[in-house]
Amino acid sequence: MENGSEQKWRFQGNKELASASSVTIRWLLDSLKRNLNQNDSRPTIPLSHGDPSVFPSFRTTDAAQDAIVDAVRSAKYNHYSTNVGILPARRAIADYLNRDLPYKLSPDDVYLTVGCKQAIEAILTVLARPGANILLPRPGYPTYEAYARCNHLEVRYFDLLQEKGWEVDLDAVVEALADENTVAMVIINPGNPCGNVYSNQHLHKIAETARKLGIMVIADEVYQHLTFGSNPFVPMGVFGSIVPVVTLGSISKRWMVPGWRLGWLVTSDPNNILQKSGIVDSIKDFLTISSDPATFTQGAIPQILEKTEEDFFSKTNGLLREAADICYDGIKEIPCLACPYKPEGAMFVMVKLNLSLLEGIKNDMEFCLQLAKEESVIILPGVAVGLKDWLRITFAVELSGLEDGLGRVKAFCQRHAKKQ
Amino acid sequence: MENGSEQKWRFQGNKELASASSVTIRWLLDSLKRNLNQNDSRPTIPLSHGDPSVFPSFRTTDAAQDAIVDAVRSAKYNHYSTNVGILPARRAIADYLNRDLPYKLSPDDVYLTVGCKQAIEAILTVLARPGANILLPRPGYPTYEAYARCNHLEVRYFDLLQEKGWEVDLDAVVEALADENTVAMVIINPGNPCGNVYSNQHLHKIAETARKLGIMVIADEVYQHLTFGSNPFVPMGVFGSIVPVVTLGSISKRWMVPGWRLGWLVTSDPNNILQKSGIVDSIKDFLTISSDPATFTQGAIPQILEKTEEDFFSKTNGLLREAADICYDGIKEIPCLACPYKPEGAMFVMVKLNLSLLEGIKNDMEFCLQLAKEESVIILPGVAVGLKDWLRITFAVELSGLEDGLGRVKAFCQRHAKKQ
Ligand SMILES: Cc1ncc(COP(=O)(O)O)c(C=O)c1O
Ligand SMILES: Cc1ncc(COP(=O)(O)O)c(C=O)c1O
Repeated sequence: MENGSEQKWRFQGNKELASASSVTIRWLLDSLKRNLNQNDSRPTIPLSHGDPSVFPSFRTTDAAQDAIVDAVRSAKYNHYSTNVGILPARRAIADYLNRDLPYKLSPDDVYLTVGCKQAIEAILTVLARPGANILLPRPGYPTYEAYARCNHLEVRYFDLLQEKGWEVDLDAVVEALADENTVAMVIINPGNPCGNVYSNQHLHKIAETARKLGIMVIADEVYQHLTFGSNPFVPMGVFGSIVPVVTLGSISKRWMVPGWRLGWLVTSDPNNILQKSGIVDSIKDFLTISSDPATFTQGAIPQILEKTEEDFFSKTNGLLREAADICYDGIKEIPCLACPYKPEGAMFVMVKLNLSLLEGIKNDMEFCLQLAKEESVIILPGVAVGLKDWLRITFAVELSGLEDGLGRVKAFCQRHAKKQ
Repeated sequence: MENGSEQKWRFQGNKELASASSVTIRWLLDSLKRNLNQNDSRPTIPLSHGDPSVFPSFRTTDAAQDAIVDAVRSAKYNHYSTNVGILPARRAIADYLNRDLPYKLSPDDVYLTVGCKQAIEAILTVLARPGANILLPRPGYPTYEAYARCNHLEVRYFDLLQEKGWEVDLDAVVEALADENTVAMVIINPGNPCGNVYSNQHLHKIAETARKLGIMVIADEVYQHLTFGSNPFVPMGVFGSIVPVVTLGSISKRWMVPGWRLGWLVTSDPNNILQKSGIVDSIKDFLTISSDPATFTQGAIPQILEKTEEDFFSKTNGLLREAADICYDGIKEIPCLACPYKPEGAMFVMVKLNLSLLEGIKNDMEFCLQLAKEESVIILPGVAVGLKDWLRITFAVELSGLEDGLGRVKAFCQRHAKKQ
């Protein structure tokens, strides 16, 4: 048999996929990891992504594991799901979210997805039409841009204002960004990458602004209730009577099980505007075509949501608070780093790099590549989330590892400090 | 607060999604189910889709359930997966497939997906480029067309020849369908919807034809090893040295767990043509962006593949053989139905409707709608899989239900028979 070397083949790779994947955190982390020094005997410290589930302190609750085990053993959930997800799971999620809302969601407002990620894919695919644009926060979460690219949806960035606790620059949204082809704006609260938590008042203003513009709000609340500062978590859906809200969430973060792949898309829209405008039908169309979360995980959802003790949540938030403190204090001691805002939610903090204090490091990417190589610490360069020459540091790791990691960052910065 | 009725909103539904979802079996079954008579006290008999997992006879093996339970209890698989899937799972699947191949797949040839469905999405998205076209079998599995529509990939149908045991009409492929923009052809073996199993010789011819055309073969082997006739299952990958093959599969059918959502895409391509042409990179790009199968299900895969006893498989195939016999014999006794080919694999048979023997039923869709209403039996109209005025009947149901269902179909046909 010939080996096909003289043969002409008519298929080829897809450049659009390459363009979309190149903006993802996953892609960037892979390139950082390739820079690790295999001869460093110290453990690698990942201060780079929102998944503390491998650390003993952040292990999920037995209640959640038991729920999956019971669902699997029952053999009642081996079958295909329906497109929107099975009713008991949707009902349980509606009940769970209703605790924080001034009106009642019905199970029919809830759509189950393969993690919050697929919920992002769903709503961006639904909104894509030729010429449409969407407003995204900067800094933000690059998965939105990746799916916008896949769907030829134009992206326009609004700034989060560092000096105002990373609030949305609403004036710019209204004056400089939105036009008659703008269909939605995205907010992430609690915030990735900034670790901020929006006040009721700010969310209210966002709602009024979106209403004025005639656009929906996509509220990414995947870090829902992971808060440990002065602002309590307020769901955007509270303002669903002012503006239609599509709320995205999952069990990934609050239960520390991102590998379980169970999320939701919820229409928080008591006036049924999303129904009337055809958005709801399109969401169902998307889910009819796409892959579902495992049926037994759906079957486990009612038990997971009901049986998890308050204790588990408060222990997690306490731990995150402690980690955020350690991180904040540790960074303060490193001259070339500055942290304008102490995180109050989620798992991250944005840190500004002062490159003028460093020798031979040109930008955030170089900083992170060198750091991986010399110190086996992985940190995400700000450029990945839209802020060049910043860093996104995850504090949701084992505390000892966090201290060790910050120590290594300090040593690295000292070693590379410009001689005065 | 106003209710938003005079407000103008700028977002709207997505017609392309509606077009894609309208070709799916899921969509069609939903409309049939809406026609069921709620006052019929008899149980509904679903002879319509490839999911027997709810029937006691087709319950999955404890070995598979134990594997999931062990993986969950270990708490080692709560974390995010990698884009291609975790190594032990990919290795186990390579080993499993290698039993039937003349060369050895490596774990790096294996990509894990959210069921076989996401594997279909992956390869069609990868292959889509402006102007490209893909060859699909008719009758076939409509998910291919749905994803082709989403990706603006042109679809051209080749016929499966009923008189030749539903073999591919290869002459037509070469002479009338393929051109310089054709990138791939899809085969489904064992066959959905026809229940046929291709001989080694026919697969060899397919490989030679595809090579001549310079196109890859996408081999949907989701019903792999579900065979019970004279032809044994031969994977298309056996001919991977002649033509690059992308093999799609999952545990959904052989283990009767379609709700678990674990599938794979495998490059069966010992000459690395898919690597050289950029297809492999694009597959990775797709998986970098998209949602993953649950990590604990990946973690369970080695145990599922190793610990399932041969007995379970042979019991399933024995049951399917018996069901296929009952179905075939039952259909023979219904004058307006004809079954040109006795199924030897998968879970379905294609049955031809003789409408000239029926009164007031114009086509296959009307037949199925009326049947649902009057007899609470759900059968898929052939139009859904590309053959108008045929039916696709699933025999993979509890045997008593199958007999009951065929009895009801017979009564229905007798009631609607034209008076001679
Ligand atoms: C802001 C934001 N949205 C969505 C996701 C995806 O969540 P999931 O793991 O549930 O898909 C993440 C994950 O890190 C995130 O940070
Ligand atoms: C031919 C074919 N391919 C793929 C699939 C999807 O398989 P999975 O459930 O593993 O996604 C099916 C399901 O019925 C099928 O019949």
